[in-house]
Amino acid sequence: MYKILKTDGRAKRAEFTTVHGTVQTPVFMNVGTVAAIKGAVATTDLQQIGTQIELSNTYHLHVRPGDKIIKQLGGLHKFMNWDKPILTDSGGFQVFSLAGLRKIKEEGVTFQSHIDGHKIFMGPEESMQIQSNLGSTIAMAFDECAPAKADRKYIQNSVDRTYRWLERCKKEMARLNSLPDTVNPDQMLFGIDQGGVFNDIRIDHAKRISELDLDGYAVGGLAVGETHEEMYDVLDNVVPYLPQDKPTYLMGVGTPANILESVDRGIDFFDCVYPSRNGRHGHVYTKFGKINLFNAKYETDTAPIEEGCGCPCCQNYSRAYVRHLLKAKEMLGMRLCVLHNLYYYNHLMTDIRAAIEEGRYAGFKEEALYQMKTYDKQ
Amino acid sequence: MYKILKTDGRAKRAEFTTVHGTVQTPVFMNVGTVAAIKGAVATTDLQQIGTQIELSNTYHLHVRPGDKIIKQLGGLHKFMNWDKPILTDSGGFQVFSLAGLRKIKEEGVTFQSHIDGHKIFMGPEESMQIQSNLGSTIAMAFDECAPAKADRKYIQNSVDRTYRWLERCKKEMARLNSLPDTVNPDQMLFGIDQGGVFNDIRIDHAKRISELDLDGYAVGGLAVGETHEEMYDVLDNVVPYLPQDKPTYLMGVGTPANILESVDRGIDFFDCVYPSRNGRHGHVYTKFGKINLFNAKYETDTAPIEEGCGCPCCQNYSRAYVRHLLKAKEMLGMRLCVLHNLYYYNHLMTDIRAAIEEGRYAGFKEEALYQMKTYDKQ
Repeated sequence: MYKILKTDGRAKRAEFTTVHGTVQTPVFMNVGTVAAIKGAVATTDLQQIGTQIELSNTYHLHVRPGDKIIKQLGGLHKFMNWDKPILTDSGGFQVFSLAGLRKIKEEGVTFQSHIDGHKIFMGPEESMQIQSNLGSTIAMAFDECAPAKADRKYIQNSVDRTYRWLERCKKEMARLNSLPDTVNPDQMLFGIDQGGVFNDIRIDHAKRISELDLDGYAVGGLAVGETHEEMYDVLDNVVPYLPQDKPTYLMGVGTPANILESVDRGIDFFDCVYPSRNGRHGHVYTKFGKINLFNAKYETDTAPIEEGCGCPCCQNYSRAYVRHLLKAKEMLGMRLCVLHNLYYYNHLMTDIRAAIEEGRYAGFKEEALYQMKTYDKQ
Repeated sequence: MYKILKTDGRAKRAEFTTVHGTVQTPVFMNVGTVAAIKGAVATTDLQQIGTQIELSNTYHLHVRPGDKIIKQLGGLHKFMNWDKPILTDSGGFQVFSLAGLRKIKEEGVTFQSHIDGHKIFMGPEESMQIQSNLGSTIAMAFDECAPAKADRKYIQNSVDRTYRWLERCKKEMARLNSLPDTVNPDQMLFGIDQGGVFNDIRIDHAKRISELDLDGYAVGGLAVGETHEEMYDVLDNVVPYLPQDKPTYLMGVGTPANILESVDRGIDFFDCVYPSRNGRHGHVYTKFGKINLFNAKYETDTAPIEEGCGCPCCQNYSRAYVRHLLKAKEMLGMRLCVLHNLYYYNHLMTDIRAAIEEGRYAGFKEEALYQMKTYDKQ
């Protein structure tokens, strides 16, 4: 159940109730691809850094350890010891970006495992079956994420097929949820709007998928090579055609600035690998911008990464210590940076929610975007 | 101050009071080579796994980030945010095992950094100066750790020089501790008995270093290639010649069985990289022996690594989950295994202390050694 508590311009402050608890939106989902957040972060760490939803990847878990094994072990929640919401993607994005030698047909996609090269077939039904075995809170529809620079004709054909796949996903999920041994009989389904940067195709697709009355809707196929301005233009044009009374998820986005701009265009779910990937490379976020801890000027810097930050890194360790760990290639350096970055993202969302509640989102956004450029200006 | 609370055979149950708190012995020191325990373990994790003393390596910290930088930052305790005891080794072992192209003279050793090959000179004074800059609770004397198979003549010369180095260490530490800006003016010094497997040389050395009235004594140069029986034989012969009213530290040892046997020969300080190194490779300790989590039979094993274990891994995660993480090369798998293994070692010491206190050490040791072979027998 999705309930809007407050709107401020196009920004929405809402609550999304699931069988695994209620999510306060706008929310940033923390990415744990193979049932763990990269950087040695455990589910027992997530309370401390303010995680509301964890996101895992269907394709990765299908190839290792296998979704049937996870079902046998009681589902993904039990496997990774996490009782709050989990969203699983459909596998589609990985099939189209990671796997080798793929062949797309009406039935689905045949491709090679990136681990051992063995042939795998995945269509809408298979994606739903895998996600049902995982028992996630929210399953994503199986879609084609078309190449960023595909032509109009390719995109139109792809979107038409993705729509037919969505109908099959909905039907298959209803069947799976009704089975007696299903892990999560309340599993929800989000549809995905596609169409590249062709707004008319995206709008038409948005209208058609809206009629299916799904639990939520995503904008997919963005942040794959187009400019930020093109992405914002798509959101300006397309989000108004998605149901306002359902959560809207912008997949794979993005930088703190992207999130601030997209919330302002009606988005309330986000996910991105930036905080964990950047953290593992010593790039850490502060309200004054991103800094690179490998920089020599932090060698004797006794300040925390960010003054006043409540994360497990800043509460205990200096920039000098974390930099030393990173230079010495100690895993602990990566863990501390990832914990900090996820805390930063999760608490950016807290601040965003407060600003919307108090009807001051426009000013908050401008101020936050301005502050983020501080280090760049030095 | 070292106070024996109870003896049971040759096993000693004691308290060692330092400026950074009191240590209950026998104790296993947890190795954090470059000011962090490998496997993404932070000092904030150590309370939970029962760590009493952390051990860091002088050579590594000298070459990176540099002991002068650590002094500038307030010393090692402040740098790594740990207020309990820290022991630093002398750098000697690394100079003789890790560094390239070394040249030993009466003054000290010239060698090449293993990081960038630059030439470094380290003698007794330099080792004490570095350890003073680090401000550890206990500094180790600078010694030569001679090759395991060195001949008698080499060993005798080496031990004579190591004795002269010890006198210089003692003098230099007294000077450093009296300086106004020293990090830890109460820094303690442990001497190291050497002599390979030549008991008469070791006994003679033990007698001579005992006269210097140091804060503690170590048996060094063991666990470098000799058999376990040779090592126990050295302990049987040498430990009686070290002061009984001072802590006795067996450097770099060892397996749980080695520890059980060595406590029975009067040892009360241990350190070893096994729990963290084995943990990073998925080899985990239980009271029934060591298991390899990569083994296929753990793929769907919902039990914790060890039933009843109170560690952060066993309290939250199954063998199946940890195995999956290890197979997927997720750092979290290594972290969880290292936390478990250190918890195991630290709590083995708790059990050892209780057994000595209750005067049942011999029986406890036999039972523990027998149980440890359970998995091997399956």
